[in-house]
Amino acid sequence: MGDVSRRDFLIGSGLFSAGLLLSKAFQIDLVTSAEAKMKTQKWPWPYEKLDPEKTAEIAYNEWYRVFCGAAVISSIFSQLAEKIGEPYASFPVDAFIIQEGGLAGWGTLCGSINGAAVVANCICGPRISGSEVGHIISTNLLDWYSNTDLPTYKPKNPKANKERIVQTMSGSPLCHISVGKWMKASGFALASPERKDRCARVAASVAYQLTMMLNAWKDGKFHEGVKWSPAGTFGITAQQNCGECHGSNIPEAPKMKK
Amino acid sequence: MGDVSRRDFLIGSGLFSAGLLLSKAFQIDLVTSAEAKMKTQKWPWPYEKLDPEKTAEIAYNEWYRVFCGAAVISSIFSQLAEKIGEPYASFPVDAFIIQEGGLAGWGTLCGSINGAAVVANCICGPRISGSEVGHIISTNLLDWYSNTDLPTYKPKNPKANKERIVQTMSGSPLCHISVGKWMKASGFALASPERKDRCARVAASVAYQLTMMLNAWKDGKFHEGVKWSPAGTFGITAQQNCGECHGSNIPEAPKMKK
Repeated sequence: MGDVSRRDFLIGSGLFSAGLLLSKAFQIDLVTSAEAKMKTQKWPWPYEKLDPEKTAEIAYNEWYRVFCGAAVISSIFSQLAEKIGEPYASFPVDAFIIQEGGLAGWGTLCGSINGAAVVANCICGPRISGSEVGHIISTNLLDWYSNTDLPTYKPKNPKANKERIVQTMSGSPLCHISVGKWMKASGFALASPERKDRCARVAASVAYQLTMMLNAWKDGKFHEGVKWSPAGTFGITAQQNCGECHGSNIPEAPKMKK
Repeated sequence: MGDVSRRDFLIGSGLFSAGLLLSKAFQIDLVTSAEAKMKTQKWPWPYEKLDPEKTAEIAYNEWYRVFCGAAVISSIFSQLAEKIGEPYASFPVDAFIIQEGGLAGWGTLCGSINGAAVVANCICGPRISGSEVGHIISTNLLDWYSNTDLPTYKPKNPKANKERIVQTMSGSPLCHISVGKWMKASGFALASPERKDRCARVAASVAYQLTMMLNAWKDGKFHEGVKWSPAGTFGITAQQNCGECHGSNIPEAPKMKK
């Protein structure tokens, strides 16, 4: 396989496919283990629609306390803890500070998406509970994040970038690539107030987008399918930006024997 | 900066540095937001030492129910729910099935590490709680995972690879790279029973390693410092394998103005 553009990916993968192709290739043998002791998990969790803008504002401010992943979780769970109570009130939000910087600063998965996936799968339930909505919201947030000029949300009282802010499309949900492309385009260092404001705005943007999806689900209006499914298309878990790491030398994944 | 070997990284970053250089560059302004509503989180969580082998066996079997991230969480929290009760019993373990395949199959952060980080930061507490142990366990698991021939754990009754299994070093905590290098070395496809057994063994290996670290912490014998700190060394969140994606053309991160 040569250099693969995003367009080729989308054509090849069946954009907006309703089924979870991924499941077929990667996730088989869903057997219940006798070792599973925790049977008290009930899905979905109770949900009341939230104001996306208020949620984004909370996420922006919480970033300066607990960073990206925990900020997104806190922005939604703190409001629901107030409106509904349990199980939100006792969820250990602050532990998810570890998701910052692509997990402890290693630049892997952007914490905002990592945290949003926790929220979607707690509220809508994991897909083994019978609904695929939490899974679809998560994978489509990965797609949206990769293909959107970020940040999209402008806070009421930004701590930096007050006149204007550079927006960049990462092509990837990885912190290193998302932050790195923004640093290159803006010229601001990692430790600068401008870069911090940018990441706080990204957390706010993800919280906004996630709230819109959860509200649509609550209204019975969430009808999205999985927008991009790497395993079914390429035979390996993957992002959409193969050529960016592999150049033109993209290895062929081993195939199942016929 | 040219092609950077792991050896150069380790020399440059101060292996086993006791301080969190990362914090200095990436994480400043830890102010408490007035929006934070959830004040009930208490750290650390009660912990009793677990048998690493039993824990690994649970993780191996749970992989076939909830995949890597949730399997690691379940392997530890299900035992503690039985021994201790709350807050483990009501933790929504199954929601973390979303961490599979590098989050919903996108090949980013290996779910086993993502789940292990949740465990470490719930039990030992987030670093804003006053202890950095949860953070250090997480970042050193990232380092261990990247630089170890995986899987290390052999289950009592493996579902595949019964005679032997290829072990590979990923150089990275990313699912795509970890799984891809193993697939290339073994020749087995993503959907093969052999690849599934391999990932279940990786989850078990991570659960084993994590349990050893938690037990050492419980005994007052966990004295590790952060083994690798990208932000302090390179001015950006990053992994250790720059050259693998960038080749010899590694961009310079924007610096703070003096």
